[in-house]
Amino acid sequence: MRYLTTRRSEKAGLPPGTLVHIGERKLDQVIVRCMAYDEMRFEEQRVDMVDGCIDLKEKPGVTWVDVCGLHDVGMIEQIGKQLNLHPLTLEDIVHTGQRPKVEDFDAYIYVVLKMFYFDEEANHITQEQVSLILGSNYVLSIQEMEKDVFDTVRDRIRKAKGRVRRSGADYLLYALLDATVDSYFSILERIGEQIEEIENEMLDHPGTEALHRVHELKREMILLRKSVWPLREVIGSLERDESELVQESTQLFLRDVYDHTIQAADTVETYRDMLSGMLDLYLSSISNRMNEVMKVLTIIATIFIPLTFIAGIYGMNFEYMPELKWPWGYLAVWVLMIVVGIVMLVYFRRKRWL
Amino acid sequence: MRYLTTRRSEKAGLPPGTLVHIGERKLDQVIVRCMAYDEMRFEEQRVDMVDGCIDLKEKPGVTWVDVCGLHDVGMIEQIGKQLNLHPLTLEDIVHTGQRPKVEDFDAYIYVVLKMFYFDEEANHITQEQVSLILGSNYVLSIQEMEKDVFDTVRDRIRKAKGRVRRSGADYLLYALLDATVDSYFSILERIGEQIEEIENEMLDHPGTEALHRVHELKREMILLRKSVWPLREVIGSLERDESELVQESTQLFLRDVYDHTIQAADTVETYRDMLSGMLDLYLSSISNRMNEVMKVLTIIATIFIPLTFIAGIYGMNFEYMPELKWPWGYLAVWVLMIVVGIVMLVYFRRKRWL
Amino acid sequence: MRYLTTRRSEKAGLPPGTLVHIGERKLDQVIVRCMAYDEMRFEEQRVDMVDGCIDLKEKPGVTWVDVCGLHDVGMIEQIGKQLNLHPLTLEDIVHTGQRPKVEDFDAYIYVVLKMFYFDEEANHITQEQVSLILGSNYVLSIQEMEKDVFDTVRDRIRKAKGRVRRSGADYLLYALLDATVDSYFSILERIGEQIEEIENEMLDHPGTEALHRVHELKREMILLRKSVWPLREVIGSLERDESELVQESTQLFLRDVYDHTIQAADTVETYRDMLSGMLDLYLSSISNRMNEVMKVLTIIATIFIPLTFIAGIYGMNFEYMPELKWPWGYLAVWVLMIVVGIVMLVYFRRKRWL
Amino acid sequence: MRYLTTRRSEKAGLPPGTLVHIGERKLDQVIVRCMAYDEMRFEEQRVDMVDGCIDLKEKPGVTWVDVCGLHDVGMIEQIGKQLNLHPLTLEDIVHTGQRPKVEDFDAYIYVVLKMFYFDEEANHITQEQVSLILGSNYVLSIQEMEKDVFDTVRDRIRKAKGRVRRSGADYLLYALLDATVDSYFSILERIGEQIEEIENEMLDHPGTEALHRVHELKREMILLRKSVWPLREVIGSLERDESELVQESTQLFLRDVYDHTIQAADTVETYRDMLSGMLDLYLSSISNRMNEVMKVLTIIATIFIPLTFIAGIYGMNFEYMPELKWPWGYLAVWVLMIVVGIVMLVYFRRKRWL
Amino acid sequence: MRYLTTRRSEKAGLPPGTLVHIGERKLDQVIVRCMAYDEMRFEEQRVDMVDGCIDLKEKPGVTWVDVCGLHDVGMIEQIGKQLNLHPLTLEDIVHTGQRPKVEDFDAYIYVVLKMFYFDEEANHITQEQVSLILGSNYVLSIQEMEKDVFDTVRDRIRKAKGRVRRSGADYLLYALLDATVDSYFSILERIGEQIEEIENEMLDHPGTEALHRVHELKREMILLRKSVWPLREVIGSLERDESELVQESTQLFLRDVYDHTIQAADTVETYRDMLSGMLDLYLSSISNRMNEVMKVLTIIATIFIPLTFIAGIYGMNFEYMPELKWPWGYLAVWVLMIVVGIVMLVYFRRKRWL
Repeated sequence: MRYLTTRRSEKAGLPPGTLVHIGERKLDQVIVRCMAYDEMRFEEQRVDMVDGCIDLKEKPGVTWVDVCGLHDVGMIEQIGKQLNLHPLTLEDIVHTGQRPKVEDFDAYIYVVLKMFYFDEEANHITQEQVSLILGSNYVLSIQEMEKDVFDTVRDRIRKAKGRVRRSGADYLLYALLDATVDSYFSILERIGEQIEEIENEMLDHPGTEALHRVHELKREMILLRKSVWPLREVIGSLERDESELVQESTQLFLRDVYDHTIQAADTVETYRDMLSGMLDLYLSSISNRMNEVMKVLTIIATIFIPLTFIAGIYGMNFEYMPELKWPWGYLAVWVLMIVVGIVMLVYFRRKRWL
Repeated sequence: MRYLTTRRSEKAGLPPGTLVHIGERKLDQVIVRCMAYDEMRFEEQRVDMVDGCIDLKEKPGVTWVDVCGLHDVGMIEQIGKQLNLHPLTLEDIVHTGQRPKVEDFDAYIYVVLKMFYFDEEANHITQEQVSLILGSNYVLSIQEMEKDVFDTVRDRIRKAKGRVRRSGADYLLYALLDATVDSYFSILERIGEQIEEIENEMLDHPGTEALHRVHELKREMILLRKSVWPLREVIGSLERDESELVQESTQLFLRDVYDHTIQAADTVETYRDMLSGMLDLYLSSISNRMNEVMKVLTIIATIFIPLTFIAGIYGMNFEYMPELKWPWGYLAVWVLMIVVGIVMLVYFRRKRWL
Repeated sequence: MRYLTTRRSEKAGLPPGTLVHIGERKLDQVIVRCMAYDEMRFEEQRVDMVDGCIDLKEKPGVTWVDVCGLHDVGMIEQIGKQLNLHPLTLEDIVHTGQRPKVEDFDAYIYVVLKMFYFDEEANHITQEQVSLILGSNYVLSIQEMEKDVFDTVRDRIRKAKGRVRRSGADYLLYALLDATVDSYFSILERIGEQIEEIENEMLDHPGTEALHRVHELKREMILLRKSVWPLREVIGSLERDESELVQESTQLFLRDVYDHTIQAADTVETYRDMLSGMLDLYLSSISNRMNEVMKVLTIIATIFIPLTFIAGIYGMNFEYMPELKWPWGYLAVWVLMIVVGIVMLVYFRRKRWL
Repeated sequence: MRYLTTRRSEKAGLPPGTLVHIGERKLDQVIVRCMAYDEMRFEEQRVDMVDGCIDLKEKPGVTWVDVCGLHDVGMIEQIGKQLNLHPLTLEDIVHTGQRPKVEDFDAYIYVVLKMFYFDEEANHITQEQVSLILGSNYVLSIQEMEKDVFDTVRDRIRKAKGRVRRSGADYLLYALLDATVDSYFSILERIGEQIEEIENEMLDHPGTEALHRVHELKREMILLRKSVWPLREVIGSLERDESELVQESTQLFLRDVYDHTIQAADTVETYRDMLSGMLDLYLSSISNRMNEVMKVLTIIATIFIPLTFIAGIYGMNFEYMPELKWPWGYLAVWVLMIVVGIVMLVYFRRKRWL
Repeated sequence: MRYLTTRRSEKAGLPPGTLVHIGERKLDQVIVRCMAYDEMRFEEQRVDMVDGCIDLKEKPGVTWVDVCGLHDVGMIEQIGKQLNLHPLTLEDIVHTGQRPKVEDFDAYIYVVLKMFYFDEEANHITQEQVSLILGSNYVLSIQEMEKDVFDTVRDRIRKAKGRVRRSGADYLLYALLDATVDSYFSILERIGEQIEEIENEMLDHPGTEALHRVHELKREMILLRKSVWPLREVIGSLERDESELVQESTQLFLRDVYDHTIQAADTVETYRDMLSGMLDLYLSSISNRMNEVMKVLTIIATIFIPLTFIAGIYGMNFEYMPELKWPWGYLAVWVLMIVVGIVMLVYFRRKRWL
């Protein structure tokens, strides 16, 4: 698994604004889903081409164009032209190695962030880059895969739940951000459960497996952190943004997402602390166990090595060894051995090894 | 025990302002306690429904409505309607995974924080979320359990001790915050005692039990910290708040609570440092002990293994072994052995192992 | 010894401004020492009651009232009334768990800090809380014990040394702060000496005693730090304070104390770094020594265990063992043993164990 | 290899502005490459002397003078005179120990940064200092070696790709900065790959080689960090610079490079974290393995040492040893030994060592 | 060696402005060197008394009075009077425990910093405090020893090299600061060389000596850091200072020194990181080696201990031991032993110990 590198070097030196898709191709076919709505009206379309959608843009109400698949840079370029996006924005959209950021281009606001999924089988986190563009009456979302965490938002639009149908494009942007941040918590909860499990395992019988799992979780925390920390700034600056694209009523909601992001970042830090603590605990436990092992070895060896020596002495075949002739010699040796053994045991008891 | 996760993912994607109780249900029945007072007058009620209390709100003087139990979201919604609370506030009230924060909604100030109890039996800390809403002439407090740390405040109101009966709702808010922060110190003192105990135990006979207790305390410190650090900002921003709801005379008292919160946060940091120091001490002690154990083994083994070898030599049954025939052979072997033993002892003494 | 807890929970929930003495009672009897002076005049008194002193306050010149002993809250209350101190100030004075802070109440400035003494016998640091109140023409100092570090200031007042007799109350406050911060350096110097001693000891023969001493010093550094770091802010804000109580000429001197406080804080950090470094050194040394011990054991054991095995072989009593009959058998065994031993030694030399 | 020191002490105490080349001489001969272009026109020259190029400066359009080789301080001085560069700028150009920085001298902007190459053979990073000077219609770049990462920019100029030919000198500066920062990613990707490889190796069979490679990578990260972190500030302040030399349209592009630099810095930090985590993992793994080794030794030794002792007993040659005469003596001894062995095995199983 | 303490407690409690020399006396006799110059004129004097020099002050041009030796506080006091220095400045001059700082007293600017020398014999760093006072037409430098790093500056003045003779006193101050900071680099380079040497040694054969050297270097880094970090602020605030004493043209040069100081501070941090990394490497290497040692012991012991046991069995003297009578008994035992040995070897190979 490649998880550290994004092959961005492939486009090193190209003129800025050159569209080169950097990242894995995760989808065979680009899918475009459009939703156009206002308080009364609702239309939904699923197309392969973007033209149809973009026309919707002229209509009143809010249009949400959701593009899945980045590899077709031609289409992205076409969208860019129709919506008058800056070449640098287009370049960032197709380059999946972005750090979460927000950029205000007056006519639109560009937000890029990461979506995380927990891959049950591989037992690790996968990520996907999502670009959100907020225009005056539309939101354009561009993701790598069809799978996303926006279904609940779609549902609320379809069924006119909550205030989404009564609000503008900025509220839709908020709803998408909120859904994304909420999805972080489900990832974090899973990791939290794993941490608790590993912790119990470590206390019961610390082993290499638990150690490697801790190491993996630490690594995943490093990667999560890289996306969650900058998101804080992103949503914070969106909330404070004085752009006309974001209404004041929406800023209250953005403050709410901001709080959630801080909570997510806090949780990531807490988990990092806990995982570090677990490594310390592991090392201490291992040292402790080794100490126990050593004590057992030492006690057995220091008791029996001298005794074996004594037995060795009287196993020698010298012609003249007076003790061997003594009638009580054998008994005396036993007495000697028992005394030596007891002295040793008392010594260890004094040293608190027993 | 689940201590890391709050199941907040259950509500991922719901429209903002949807009331979903997130957290354990800690109470069978919602309990509402009302107090209405001014300098002359005092009324106290304990009801199951909130209507009666809310009527009191129209009366002059200060009303404190204390709701215990969050699971009945219908009732929370009803309270919200009567007091004109923002949907996001209601959502935060029933969601027990909040980070301490303060939000100023002009008409009211919303403060959310954590209350800690020390569970004697389980020997760890339990927490509860408390929401405080300060209106012009009322304070609404909403907690998860009936048990709380506000009894002293109730007493002061009932017996008209201190200035609480002569002051407004903002002073009541201060009194509740102060009682909460004061209760943190009793938790911290208990932990402080435990740290001192464990430290003594570690110096006397470092063992796995003490190690695990240190690990648990570290974990509890991480969780405490998560609540105490943001509280600093909460009370700090409340103190600086220019809302009309907080009078200038109360700000002096808020500065006092602010100082206490800093002290609590300081203490948490100090304990963290101490616990880290204890882990280092533990590892060093264990290494030291292992070294001692190894030395004993090494001394015994390196003295007796060569001697046993010598004895083994003369235990061989070769027909032609001239030494065996010598009259002084046995004595000579003893002399040899004693010399070898003394040489070894001198060597160890030189190496400062003895 | 209790060093972490201050029993502040005893007053949890009491109305603010309730005077409860929190801390050990360190003195049987309250002692009050008054000094009234200006450039020409000097009076000194030692009384049990504060009334006499407070009258002096009306006189021209500067009055310094020094109260030793906090347990008599009645007297503190009386002083508070006569000098018009805020109830929160009085509460802080009798509560010995304060973090160093400064509070400007227009009519007076309240400074609270810690004084440290090195207890020669117990070989550790003890601390005492000192409250300083600067009024227009008086300084009130309240401490827990009679012992203090202000004797040099008293002497300078008595003998009219330096500019203290020519200056106002703010200069006196400065002089007291300066004496306190200077006393920190004598504590730090002692600790510095101990660190140097322990360091030498660690290099020569690292042992448990030195380890525990390092641990204790680390703990004392944590506690010192808790008092020195906030003092920086205290004196810094005093220096920048625009209160009329502090004259501009005194601010230059306060800047000097501020520099000293930074130096003290720096030194505390340096010592913490050094003590951490010593723990690392200790662990490395122990590991190194254990390695040495293991090598000796391994060399001896791996040389003699095979040899003993060979001797064991020819100590067997089988009827048919042809080697035993060989005339050169015994010699051959010796040769074999010497060869095995030399091979082993060469092997160890190759591995650089010898 | 010298990688820590730059021999800057050689010029200690010389008057400022004295040109002394500090650093290795990496090139035999100074090479000067000039490019002069505007939207229509393009000229390229490769000369040994700088005069020719400097004349180009008078022409309209943009001139890029690229000097490779620093050791000829006379030539640098001459360039400085012709372009009116400040002596301190010239001093910094020839002194290769610079920290990345930007300095605005009104008439020109001076930027100094590091270029990194991955040396395949030696398997480590080499670096080179690059000075960039932005004048009103020229860019002067001065590097240590002929090899650089600017080839793609040259290509874009030659083939009029992108907007470089239509833009001013400031855009050229941006293009060079962009190429440099992009080249950092190719270095970082290589290191990322190595980290992944080593990680797998460590999990499979942790050894000294992997350990040393981690240590080397850590060291390289320290050196990379030293160049990447200040670059952040450099490009950040260039972006915010209000100099007339940088047009507003270019600042948007600089913001893009700024983002890339933050990403590079982020990646460096992530790698540092990962390498630290790997050292912890290594230590834990080693401890774990040692524990395993010890257990095997202990089990074997504690089972057979007592048994050997028993055998030793009955190998003694006392005349009166009744057991030796018993017909079932030998069998009894075997039974005894098997019982002792089984007891030991049960004990180890209880201790979970087996 | 005393390196942590400066005996500053000796003057605890004295009135501010009392001159007490704190520090070692490093010189027998105070030496005063004066230089007076302008573009045309140059005079140099070496005297024991300061009067002569101070008269020069009235003359036009710049005068540099360099006083070596602090112990004669009377002379310092006299200089102070003649130049109208504040008592606190004089106090700081004779007190060698200062932290680098700058203080602007309108009529003059007071800078205090540390000069470092590398003591070849003792192989460690020694330091000296230097006070610099910049007046309108003079610079007063006061140091502890005659030896200093200003010789190059003296030379440039004597030989009228660079711009020093054409510039004012502020440029001289700059030149002295620059010479001091430059001298830091020669110290740092030496330490860098040592770090590289130790690193190689550690990789080849990690031993206690290298460990102790790392520890010493870490300690020296802590002390260097204490002087270099505050110097950053000192020169930074000097550069930004709006005092009339520093001309604008000089500020450009001060910015240059500021850059050098940042570089020095950076280098100190880098070295600290490297030394910490080396300790980690050391610990890991030691653990690794111990593991190797243990494996050798374990392999030898676990192979031969069972074999020796078998030999012991057949060395017993029971009358009835049927195996002893068997003609193939001896051979069978050898076969058994070889089988046991091979099984063990296979087991170790499986465990990857061989």
